Amino acid sequence: METLHHIQALRQALAGPRRAGQRIALVPTMGNLHEGHLELVAMARAHADLVVATIFVNPLQFGEGEDLDAYPRTLAEDQAGLARAGCDLLFAPSTRELYPQGLDVQTRVHVAGVSEGLCGSSRPGHFDGVATVVSLLFNLVQPDVACFGEKDYQQLAVIRQLTRDLHFPVKIVGAPIVRAADGLALSSRNGYLSEEERAQAPGLYATLCELRDALIAGTPAADAIATAHERLVSRGFVPDYLALRRADDLGEVDAQTQEAIILAAAQLGPARLIDNLNVNLSQRDG
Amino acid sequence: METLHHIQALRQALAGPRRAGQRIALVPTMGNLHEGHLELVAMARAHADLVVATIFVNPLQFGEGEDLDAYPRTLAEDQAGLARAGCDLLFAPSTRELYPQGLDVQTRVHVAGVSEGLCGSSRPGHFDGVATVVSLLFNLVQPDVACFGEKDYQQLAVIRQLTRDLHFPVKIVGAPIVRAADGLALSSRNGYLSEEERAQAPGLYATLCELRDALIAGTPAADAIATAHERLVSRGFVPDYLALRRADDLGEVDAQTQEAIILAAAQLGPARLIDNLNVNLSQRDG
Repeated sequence: METLHHIQALRQALAGPRRAGQRIALVPTMGNLHEGHLELVAMARAHADLVVATIFVNPLQFGEGEDLDAYPRTLAEDQAGLARAGCDLLFAPSTRELYPQGLDVQTRVHVAGVSEGLCGSSRPGHFDGVATVVSLLFNLVQPDVACFGEKDYQQLAVIRQLTRDLHFPVKIVGAPIVRAADGLALSSRNGYLSEEERAQAPGLYATLCELRDALIAGTPAADAIATAHERLVSRGFVPDYLALRRADDLGEVDAQTQEAIILAAAQLGPARLIDNLNVNLSQRDG
Repeated sequence: METLHHIQALRQALAGPRRAGQRIALVPTMGNLHEGHLELVAMARAHADLVVATIFVNPLQFGEGEDLDAYPRTLAEDQAGLARAGCDLLFAPSTRELYPQGLDVQTRVHVAGVSEGLCGSSRPGHFDGVATVVSLLFNLVQPDVACFGEKDYQQLAVIRQLTRDLHFPVKIVGAPIVRAADGLALSSRNGYLSEEERAQAPGLYATLCELRDALIAGTPAADAIATAHERLVSRGFVPDYLALRRADDLGEVDAQTQEAIILAAAQLGPARLIDNLNVNLSQRDG
């Protein structure tokens, strides 16, 4: 697997395969890869002849006081993992390479609606940064298909809307969350946890499962969510949000909603963890 | 020349030529074409195997109270002109086709810096609308080259920065202003003018030429601009702005600036006219 750091080299490497009619898949990442990312690569392989992964810790999607500088950089391990998973090409540019004019005057892409609320409220500008870097990676790689994890559920919804609204000729594929044996969703930010915190961390997923079960059992949503919120606190989390939304567009659930999703973000020690879980409300009792 | 109204038909029509390695040029327009547009088509022909023109009166780039509804729609004449000029394919979508989710939740692209001031001040949101529709047309047509007129000088600068910042794989080509025999820059909005106003309209270009000559003759810029402003008023215009800027990035002119540009916007009766003129300040006397 070749690693390229420059745009010109990337374009050159992809010109031949594209001319030959090969299908190209993109797996954008911020590196520090875990099994969840490698599943994305496997999924990309199934959709394309050539798999391009990118590693770029995008400053545009970090807010002030967030963990941009602390974000783990592990290029050598990432390269080994990607090669094993069947990635053909890694593009790992510098910030200067992607944003040569600097961040202040960088053209930005704003996705409305689905980017508001949830992480959009807690992290102002975050999804503009995501939409911008994804637009730019789409233009650099010109993939036929791009794979994103469902752990970042709102991000995936933002990217789907971005792709639809700007008519990018790219098929977006979401990949199921990969979890540790104890239920914790894999995330680079899990690495920030102490041993004790790591032991508490599966409480987030456990709470989502309890909330789902309560909803299916017919508990009114407001009550079930309030109880789950208390459980999160008692399990050592500082909840940011815990919400039940329509699965397709993250709108408010109403009496007609069948496919819903529970989304949560909560601080545990130094780490802001997010997770989500589908609920089929048509199975609800009563 | 074929005219297509739907995205799917456009993508189908372009897939074969693209696979065959043909170079594609894009000429985006709002229709009501004049000789300036047809020059763009001729320029596009020189750069590509296949020329795609688009006609779309983009609501996203019109402000409240602007002339969206009044903007002239002349599809049959435009088709005839494009065919004569050597255009291969015309894409003329509806608003619903390009923005199926509606304008309110449409993803937007914001180009910073060069979009501020001048027309960006007078027409808030205008350049976001331009940057958005151009991004979307780039994604639909996937051209190798795109041609824009220099009459909309700030727009061209915005599109150049958009293309650079989001790394669109598109070469941007600017085409010189086409003028009537009396000097008036061709524009669809000239059609709004009464006979009397049409006779006054060349006064805009005449004023720019006088301003350029005064600058070259060594008149201090502030004085020369103040005089030109008065001349515009005496010629029946209500000036919006009259500015001397760096030609490359529209920044403020300083002692080092060689290539500058005079830009003006002024209301004449029902029409807001814009024009611009290059000045080589290194030729300045004194």
